[in-house]
Amino acid sequence: MVIVMASDAEQSDVDAVIDRVESAGGQAFVSRGVSRMIIGLVGDVDAFATLNLSGMRGVCNVTRISTNYKLVSREHHPDRSVVHVRGVPIGPDTVTLIAGPCAVETPEQTLESARMAQAAGATLLRGGAFKPRTSPYAFQGLGELGLKILADVREETGLPIVTEVVGAHEVDMVAEYADMLQVGTRNMQNFTLLQAVGAAGKPVMLKRGMNATIEEWLMAAEYIAQRGNLHIVLCERGIRTFETATRNTLDISAVPVAQRLSHLPVIVDPSHSGGRRDLVLPLSRAAIVAGADGVIVDVHPQPDLALCDGPQALVAEDLADLSRTVAELTVYMGRNAPTRRLRRAS
Amino acid sequence: MVIVMASDAEQSDVDAVIDRVESAGGQAFVSRGVSRMIIGLVGDVDAFATLNLSGMRGVCNVTRISTNYKLVSREHHPDRSVVHVRGVPIGPDTVTLIAGPCAVETPEQTLESARMAQAAGATLLRGGAFKPRTSPYAFQGLGELGLKILADVREETGLPIVTEVVGAHEVDMVAEYADMLQVGTRNMQNFTLLQAVGAAGKPVMLKRGMNATIEEWLMAAEYIAQRGNLHIVLCERGIRTFETATRNTLDISAVPVAQRLSHLPVIVDPSHSGGRRDLVLPLSRAAIVAGADGVIVDVHPQPDLALCDGPQALVAEDLADLSRTVAELTVYMGRNAPTRRLRRAS
Amino acid sequence: MVIVMASDAEQSDVDAVIDRVESAGGQAFVSRGVSRMIIGLVGDVDAFATLNLSGMRGVCNVTRISTNYKLVSREHHPDRSVVHVRGVPIGPDTVTLIAGPCAVETPEQTLESARMAQAAGATLLRGGAFKPRTSPYAFQGLGELGLKILADVREETGLPIVTEVVGAHEVDMVAEYADMLQVGTRNMQNFTLLQAVGAAGKPVMLKRGMNATIEEWLMAAEYIAQRGNLHIVLCERGIRTFETATRNTLDISAVPVAQRLSHLPVIVDPSHSGGRRDLVLPLSRAAIVAGADGVIVDVHPQPDLALCDGPQALVAEDLADLSRTVAELTVYMGRNAPTRRLRRAS
Amino acid sequence: MVIVMASDAEQSDVDAVIDRVESAGGQAFVSRGVSRMIIGLVGDVDAFATLNLSGMRGVCNVTRISTNYKLVSREHHPDRSVVHVRGVPIGPDTVTLIAGPCAVETPEQTLESARMAQAAGATLLRGGAFKPRTSPYAFQGLGELGLKILADVREETGLPIVTEVVGAHEVDMVAEYADMLQVGTRNMQNFTLLQAVGAAGKPVMLKRGMNATIEEWLMAAEYIAQRGNLHIVLCERGIRTFETATRNTLDISAVPVAQRLSHLPVIVDPSHSGGRRDLVLPLSRAAIVAGADGVIVDVHPQPDLALCDGPQALVAEDLADLSRTVAELTVYMGRNAPTRRLRRAS
Repeated sequence: MVIVMASDAEQSDVDAVIDRVESAGGQAFVSRGVSRMIIGLVGDVDAFATLNLSGMRGVCNVTRISTNYKLVSREHHPDRSVVHVRGVPIGPDTVTLIAGPCAVETPEQTLESARMAQAAGATLLRGGAFKPRTSPYAFQGLGELGLKILADVREETGLPIVTEVVGAHEVDMVAEYADMLQVGTRNMQNFTLLQAVGAAGKPVMLKRGMNATIEEWLMAAEYIAQRGNLHIVLCERGIRTFETATRNTLDISAVPVAQRLSHLPVIVDPSHSGGRRDLVLPLSRAAIVAGADGVIVDVHPQPDLALCDGPQALVAEDLADLSRTVAELTVYMGRNAPTRRLRRAS
Repeated sequence: MVIVMASDAEQSDVDAVIDRVESAGGQAFVSRGVSRMIIGLVGDVDAFATLNLSGMRGVCNVTRISTNYKLVSREHHPDRSVVHVRGVPIGPDTVTLIAGPCAVETPEQTLESARMAQAAGATLLRGGAFKPRTSPYAFQGLGELGLKILADVREETGLPIVTEVVGAHEVDMVAEYADMLQVGTRNMQNFTLLQAVGAAGKPVMLKRGMNATIEEWLMAAEYIAQRGNLHIVLCERGIRTFETATRNTLDISAVPVAQRLSHLPVIVDPSHSGGRRDLVLPLSRAAIVAGADGVIVDVHPQPDLALCDGPQALVAEDLADLSRTVAELTVYMGRNAPTRRLRRAS
Repeated sequence: MVIVMASDAEQSDVDAVIDRVESAGGQAFVSRGVSRMIIGLVGDVDAFATLNLSGMRGVCNVTRISTNYKLVSREHHPDRSVVHVRGVPIGPDTVTLIAGPCAVETPEQTLESARMAQAAGATLLRGGAFKPRTSPYAFQGLGELGLKILADVREETGLPIVTEVVGAHEVDMVAEYADMLQVGTRNMQNFTLLQAVGAAGKPVMLKRGMNATIEEWLMAAEYIAQRGNLHIVLCERGIRTFETATRNTLDISAVPVAQRLSHLPVIVDPSHSGGRRDLVLPLSRAAIVAGADGVIVDVHPQPDLALCDGPQALVAEDLADLSRTVAELTVYMGRNAPTRRLRRAS
Repeated sequence: MVIVMASDAEQSDVDAVIDRVESAGGQAFVSRGVSRMIIGLVGDVDAFATLNLSGMRGVCNVTRISTNYKLVSREHHPDRSVVHVRGVPIGPDTVTLIAGPCAVETPEQTLESARMAQAAGATLLRGGAFKPRTSPYAFQGLGELGLKILADVREETGLPIVTEVVGAHEVDMVAEYADMLQVGTRNMQNFTLLQAVGAAGKPVMLKRGMNATIEEWLMAAEYIAQRGNLHIVLCERGIRTFETATRNTLDISAVPVAQRLSHLPVIVDPSHSGGRRDLVLPLSRAAIVAGADGVIVDVHPQPDLALCDGPQALVAEDLADLSRTVAELTVYMGRNAPTRRLRRAS
């Protein structure tokens, strides 16, 4: 931690800072500049954070040098992690394709979407039973009925299920059906939910908040990790900016940046970021060569009739392209298509 | 609803849109332009929203003209509402001052803060027992113990309590102590929580999400209202922008804009938006003359020692200024200081 | 300047930094932390900035502590400045009202607008002859003809003229007519233009770039000041955010923040930030009590017919309100209405 | 154009709109909804834009359906264009690599950078002689001396030159040396400059403003095109968002979006968007597979000593990777490396 004192700080202000730091078991080193003093702190940074140093007289600025996350940090865990979802790996050696309908609507639509996904090379099935919607008048998902449909489709196709959970009290119920729990963009800082999924013992896909910095995203992951669950996959899905040509702005740089800061896998959702079907393929390609460990896309047998986000869902004719693209660029990046490692469902 | 067709749309595309609209009980009117056609829809707009018109062939753009919220809309309720918190009004005839510590730390600190608040003219006490913090290593609040402290201080001072609730499963417990439930900025789109506070039957203060448009804020309020609870106060607390000189950017225009769109009261939090003590007074003044129905500020007897957001808390010497400012500008705006209307706690 | 070294930096990296700093005549002080080293630099910071220290091996982060502007900084000039425009003061003792049409269209419209402005208490006339427009197909202003109209209206009314200049090569011509040169939001970082207006010897109104931080705004002012012209007034006019309910988001906090960092006067443009006539009055009030040294508004005798920004122009019936508001809040803030100090045009 | 009337608009308001439109030679069609009326306009949209319809009584909203640009629009020119820079093509059949130093510092550094660029497969040399810098105290470039150095290096290497021009009055002088004129991000809405480069008859690279929407970018290109110069290449270089981990946020979606709206080539600058050397390669890959028609990168023989943007410059060891990447992905995308088509310099 580095403290910059104001130019009119007095020696007594500096002494007060040093006293407080030392009383918390730390050490303080003073550098005198021409017009200001800088104090470097050594010791337990989390303890320092509770000292309210920035509120002290004469203090201009306090900068934390070490990160605010540890368990998910790459500094403390240099090897990049692999997360297994019922045997399907997501990590640095593979490019995992996750596909399925935005929302589960009917058994037929879900099964058909899953077949489309599988034919395109997807090894995990996405599908929402609980949908957090901006408008209370929009379709909110089928709830537990949707989960049962997903479970039936898994039975049929063998594809493990990734599905969203929106309330802490529903985590246990959703975890009974799901193979991976998804925390959506609007809930990235729903700390109650983060703690609940952390305790549930299932792999978690944590979508980046549309207004969250990469650092805040990693701190949200740390909330999950603190409960003993490190099976976390980060998912970049676009951030909110002034640009309105796309629903959100895919922050493609976040892939290499987050992978440098954290050992967790990072995947990309090109469907929700752009909100436009015609962008899914170019953004999927971009994601893979930027180093993403996977891609998650919406598919729908009849996007015209989709109850949610139809305009962005891929249709059958797109999927051959997607499939070929993923396969080719996976090889280009020196990775493998993931094949399931047989093991019991976690 | 207005649909703009693509310039290369065919007559069959137009017919398909009309069919779908009519099959949902609506009416469609076509205007032919030089290079495009425009279709105006009349009928149940919410039904149309489920038709996925924007995913249809030849459709370029679908614009909803009517609002996505009704219960909180001023179009359907032209008179601005008054929300009473244990008898203290928040609404168009008053300027309500809410003050207190960001976080409840000890009985002494809370009582002292409440006395400061009361002396400055505050008629409601704010104080957090559950704190949603970006870092899992930051102080998370005292939980129910904090609520008990607040209840004791209410007993002592007579000030009704405004306090945050962060999890849906805790709403009932918090509601036992609180006079007004606060939904924080990170939870504005935690729809599970919104529905729970909607059902709790207590007044709600809904902070604007730091990345939420005014329209999304009103839709979040609509989630609460749908559960039969219209005792909602909107609180502008700054949005996230590229500017880093302040913690967030107070969107002062949101006050008159939200009041024009909704009948709900709108207050301003100048402490959290700026994150700087020296901005609290100028921003409080600005809020009141922009038409805010109240102001909510942090106070602390010893901000140096605050466990949370110390740098922005007002101290005793600021409060006389704040008190005078609020009083004078309340009169200037032709409003009254709120005095409690005696009635039983709701 | 403070340099934070990477956690894996070697002693030779630290030595290389020290060498480079010392070879530039500076001094470097090393603080050793548990896992990192921090180097504080003392000396000519501008010289250090050319050393490319952040590109050196082992350097993690370089933070400049002193500001990037000097001439406009309040640190070096604690008293707030007054800028006189042909005798009309803008500064800490007054609240100056500047009003007029967004664009000069005809002699009649300009004169009528000026009469409206004057009746409302304005002491300076705004009006655009050169309009930078996003679309090349929009009205671009009357050019020099517009300036002549403004000069005639000045003759008629006695109101000094504030008008925009968009090209460096036109500065001399515009300066022949104008009493104050305006640099618009899109040109805030047109450094060629900044230098030209700096050399022209007329007072300058520098609008904040809609995407500029406060620090960048002050650095843009420094470009003007470097040419020997310190007669600069800063004008906050809204920044670009994700919110679309208003054209831009008025950053009301920028008023006190900029006044703390710089000695230059700061005024507010509530017309262009909101883009809506109904927001001009509440935002004007907010600006004055936040400490603005003036307000600049659009007026138009027939906004229906305005060639530019009609929807935001005040009409006659609004002006009595504006006039009363400005007068009352000026008194409330302990300031005076500006009266012209007689002196020859600068 | 579509006009939505307010719900309380009267028939006389509607009639007034129709009258005004018809008096301008247009036609208006009215659709009546349950609570609102919608008026569709047919005719000369640019003429309608001057009618100030949005300022009329009872008008709620005016939406322009047709685009604000024509000459650069793909709607009017379906085939994507190729721009030749002294014989080097930039367009849909190639992926052009442009490389060189951010700033020209010395003849040696420039020549060495050019050799590095050429060895990596670059066919155009970038290099700045006029640098628009946020701080007036930062290195501003060598000016005409820098242009002479560039010309000498072109003589030596055969690489055509891309270089920035910052002032309208310097366009002719810069054009004497340059093969392609660059308009930088801060000048994207410097309309005086746009018109000057439009008139200069040289190919132009138009960087996207860091706060500009894609639509505004295309309107800026339209300013250049209006002067008869359609040899314009668009360059995405990152937009300003709340994220601070990267200097700007590369808007990778802008590549396919802009290519769909405009026939002009679109290239990407991964060096300036990220501001970090370690991001240049992943972002270059992403750009190419997203469909970019070229990539422009900073190289420097000794980034440690660079006077400008050293931390982002590629060094020799990176260039082999870049070269291989560009070559491989160019083939993957079914394009060619550009070879110069021999012709006289334009």
